[in-house]
Amino acid sequence: MVLLARYVVTPWEVEGDVDYKRLMTEFGIQELDDRLLERIRRQAGGLHPFLSRRIFFAHRDFGRVLDQYDQRDPFFLYTGRAPSGHTHLGHLVPWIFTKWLQDAYGVELWFQFPDDEKFLFKERLTLEDTNRFTEENMLDVIALGFDPKRTHFLIDTRHAGIMYREALRVAKRITFSQVKSSFGLTNEANLGQVFYTAMQAVPAFLPSVLAGKSLPCLIPHAVDQDPHFRLSRDVVGKLGYDKPASIQCRFLPPLEGTSGKMSASADSLATIWTVDDERTVRKKVNKYAFSGGRDTVEDHRRLGGRPEVDVAYQYLTFFEEDDTKLRKIHDDYAAGKILSGELKGILVEKLVGMLGRHQDAREKARNKVDSYLYTP
Amino acid sequence: MVLLARYVVTPWEVEGDVDYKRLMTEFGIQELDDRLLERIRRQAGGLHPFLSRRIFFAHRDFGRVLDQYDQRDPFFLYTGRAPSGHTHLGHLVPWIFTKWLQDAYGVELWFQFPDDEKFLFKERLTLEDTNRFTEENMLDVIALGFDPKRTHFLIDTRHAGIMYREALRVAKRITFSQVKSSFGLTNEANLGQVFYTAMQAVPAFLPSVLAGKSLPCLIPHAVDQDPHFRLSRDVVGKLGYDKPASIQCRFLPPLEGTSGKMSASADSLATIWTVDDERTVRKKVNKYAFSGGRDTVEDHRRLGGRPEVDVAYQYLTFFEEDDTKLRKIHDDYAAGKILSGELKGILVEKLVGMLGRHQDAREKARNKVDSYLYTP
Repeated sequence: MVLLARYVVTPWEVEGDVDYKRLMTEFGIQELDDRLLERIRRQAGGLHPFLSRRIFFAHRDFGRVLDQYDQRDPFFLYTGRAPSGHTHLGHLVPWIFTKWLQDAYGVELWFQFPDDEKFLFKERLTLEDTNRFTEENMLDVIALGFDPKRTHFLIDTRHAGIMYREALRVAKRITFSQVKSSFGLTNEANLGQVFYTAMQAVPAFLPSVLAGKSLPCLIPHAVDQDPHFRLSRDVVGKLGYDKPASIQCRFLPPLEGTSGKMSASADSLATIWTVDDERTVRKKVNKYAFSGGRDTVEDHRRLGGRPEVDVAYQYLTFFEEDDTKLRKIHDDYAAGKILSGELKGILVEKLVGMLGRHQDAREKARNKVDSYLYTP
Repeated sequence: MVLLARYVVTPWEVEGDVDYKRLMTEFGIQELDDRLLERIRRQAGGLHPFLSRRIFFAHRDFGRVLDQYDQRDPFFLYTGRAPSGHTHLGHLVPWIFTKWLQDAYGVELWFQFPDDEKFLFKERLTLEDTNRFTEENMLDVIALGFDPKRTHFLIDTRHAGIMYREALRVAKRITFSQVKSSFGLTNEANLGQVFYTAMQAVPAFLPSVLAGKSLPCLIPHAVDQDPHFRLSRDVVGKLGYDKPASIQCRFLPPLEGTSGKMSASADSLATIWTVDDERTVRKKVNKYAFSGGRDTVEDHRRLGGRPEVDVAYQYLTFFEEDDTKLRKIHDDYAAGKILSGELKGILVEKLVGMLGRHQDAREKARNKVDSYLYTP
């Protein structure tokens, strides 16, 4: 658990004004530097904006898997979604990037839905709830267009028949003391919470088990999940497989401000869900998005807006892929040419277009689930 | 964990001169009294010697499942074998009795092989080892003649597909503090050891899950397993199923003395395995069995032997089913008519006959395994 003066980041809690520089030091993760970005640009034929804009900003051993890729030993991707509720905009960030990686490198993806985790950590959730959310969340993942031939969904309770055995091999090599210090679990943690991290480690080497040889693994994930993989990297190594590498992103901030992450709580009024309609998105952005504008139109025209604290602008850095357009919006806003309400309008238009296409694809995903579920 | 001055009993350790009376008080289990034995005699049409001789000596809620049986709500049986090595004579005791219960009451049996437990608790064992021992141990269970139509083997790693989900429901309701105090686990316990008791609880209600209604459960087991079920009884109750009842036996003592239990360690020279041949059994009994005889033949004829400390005699109380024969052996030995070596000869003859029949049945069991394995 990382607990600094101003923020808390664990796999279950992200609070306060996250200082990503300090987080890298605390977690012991490396910055995604220009040299690495240049390698990706060369291999992939371009850079996703999440890279050039340092939304993905840190990594572990990413250089090694790129070396292996160059030596014709391609990595597989592993990411996931803990099904505690519906999918919101922030969840899409690592998945959009994972989809880009799959296409750019032409690799396999193992996508885990740890329905056990959310059942164990949320008192009120039943297994029936987490199973239902898994069904919903799978539609959002499929809607992003992953290649069904190279994508394999693993649902912990459904695939326990192959996963539990491998989780045991991890669990035997991690002590309660270790999870206590990594996650801040107490003696009042339930037995499943203690065991769970072993299940989360499994997809990092299950493809190697199935292939009968060690395959490099790359895990794109939000930085709060690092404690799980930090703990399991050594164990996976001791089991005779490559330590999984990772590439880590920062959080989409909540609408109300640029710190923390968007709330996944069902009763959060300011969360934009993938199933929200145009009217709802417009209302949430207009009502809740923290503005970097000035108190009066006159002041705004004279002093200019502050894009660095304006959430509408921050969101556009995630979702407006065109660098030229984004730069112009930034400059016009900073120069006072665009008013705060107009900036929100630009974001709403962007999100409504994106979510409209997503919702169409999401409906079509309903009869595609079986082709993504892993079958031994 | 029960730790009294003279002995230790946990699911992983039985040491010293076990005081069964104090154990009942410590564990909070009830004595199997005359009234209960009378009910069994009436329902089952007789009493197994393990009952009349109080080898099965304690229980939890046994009266309740007999009530339910009278009300045409028959219990199912649940017992198991943790596959850490080959089967020895002591392992057979609860199984022989379980077989008698299955026949006498005409009920289903769920037999668990927790290969995960032994892998997690024995540093040197691999999953391949515990899988191999499971294959061997299954032959010993089948050799006892359980009804394949009413007997269902569950192997934790193999049946995790149906078991893990149910184990989660148990695990969510037990804290690390609770397993710490029940089993004496420390903060250095591995994650699997912490989680394991949840897997052991599953067969106590899995048949109810599959049937879609609560079925009474009776667990015949050696008394050292009580801490597992004590912990899970309340949880199973809270999940909406009947609390499992149990009937508990004492240990077959080691050959070297009447305290503790026979060692399952592969390097124990004094352990009688189910696959031992006549010569081996004879050698072990003659060499290691603690004798209640006197120092000289003259003293023995004059003072008589002491059956209460003589291990050969104690073993006959387990394996000589004929009460009249056993009584005569006791009296003749106590009167000095039978010498210690002769008594050992009687035991060897008994064991060799029993193991010979067992080994024949064990060979025939090799092609019957599939008919016992549970298939959903």
